[in-house]
Amino acid sequence: MAKEATRQAIIQKGAKLIHSRGFVNTGIQEIITAAGVPKGSFYFYFKNKDDFGAGVIDHFSDLVISWFEKYSEDHTLPPLARLERFFDDSNHFYEKIGFTCGCPIGNLSQEMSDLSEPMRNKLSDAYGRIRLIMKNCITEAKEQGAVSSKEDADELAVFVLNGWEGALIDMKVSKSIRPLVIFKKVLFEKILTA
Amino acid sequence: MAKEATRQAIIQKGAKLIHSRGFVNTGIQEIITAAGVPKGSFYFYFKNKDDFGAGVIDHFSDLVISWFEKYSEDHTLPPLARLERFFDDSNHFYEKIGFTCGCPIGNLSQEMSDLSEPMRNKLSDAYGRIRLIMKNCITEAKEQGAVSSKEDADELAVFVLNGWEGALIDMKVSKSIRPLVIFKKVLFEKILTA
Repeated sequence: MAKEATRQAIIQKGAKLIHSRGFVNTGIQEIITAAGVPKGSFYFYFKNKDDFGAGVIDHFSDLVISWFEKYSEDHTLPPLARLERFFDDSNHFYEKIGFTCGCPIGNLSQEMSDLSEPMRNKLSDAYGRIRLIMKNCITEAKEQGAVSSKEDADELAVFVLNGWEGALIDMKVSKSIRPLVIFKKVLFEKILTA
Repeated sequence: MAKEATRQAIIQKGAKLIHSRGFVNTGIQEIITAAGVPKGSFYFYFKNKDDFGAGVIDHFSDLVISWFEKYSEDHTLPPLARLERFFDDSNHFYEKIGFTCGCPIGNLSQEMSDLSEPMRNKLSDAYGRIRLIMKNCITEAKEQGAVSSKEDADELAVFVLNGWEGALIDMKVSKSIRPLVIFKKVLFEKILTA
């Protein structure tokens, strides 16, 4: 494998472990083993575990954004219907995996923001990128009159994204879809309305 | 020190470390050292780290609830004003500690729900206890006409608590009060209204 391909293989296998077990809880040796690369080669690809963490955040961030954009860019639907579909399919996904894992960006933000400044900066950028997609949908909904023109789309995007992240933690702890169902219900009945 | 007092000292010192660094990231040796008890005595007080974790969750749960009840039981104020004051003082607290740590119950729920079933059960109970205080305030607000009588107080409590937990993660990652300010603004303008 070329250097970049091996680096990506380590990131992908590591990301999978980290999503289900956490960053601190995932050892370099386990990552190397999962990626099937020779023992000791980790530091050939990464300066340290934080540098690897930054790569993992880029990977997660690209995944979440490409998933979200699949819905947000579907212009055959009005903007709020796109968001609704995104949340429905996301709920379905979490149901399928037994209400485990949660959002990798939210998880790492909770776990690593106070422990690694380089990782926190990367996570903050990822939040910004996800929020922007949300904001653009809400802005479009405002232009079409589905959300009141008086609303601040950026503030609503902050509130909605954070409400979702919080609902995903409750989902993990309750092992139930209820927090996600309530999130969606209140969101479309009380927040994103004309 | 009597056995129970030593156990409590270990839990309190451990809880402090865990709140700022995470559960997996805090070693038993560090906890024992911080508590000033002899090396190797941890397993005299706890069956294993999960058993210690359950004690830490009880400790955090009692702390969060007694803090919250200080506001929710202040009947000199109307129920929504009590909630508003709780969030204001909580924001002030997080500002003072540099937007670090976050909610210990939310943090452990994110970190440990998929890793320890005994800890998940304890955390789920803690969520239930905190939610009940929130629900009682909202029910009282409904009775006084400050929140529409059509609303489901239990569902709103789920939504509000989760929105707050999500805002606290954004606070940690952005190192800013903005997500907490936006949470409070949207909460009292769009969710908890007549």
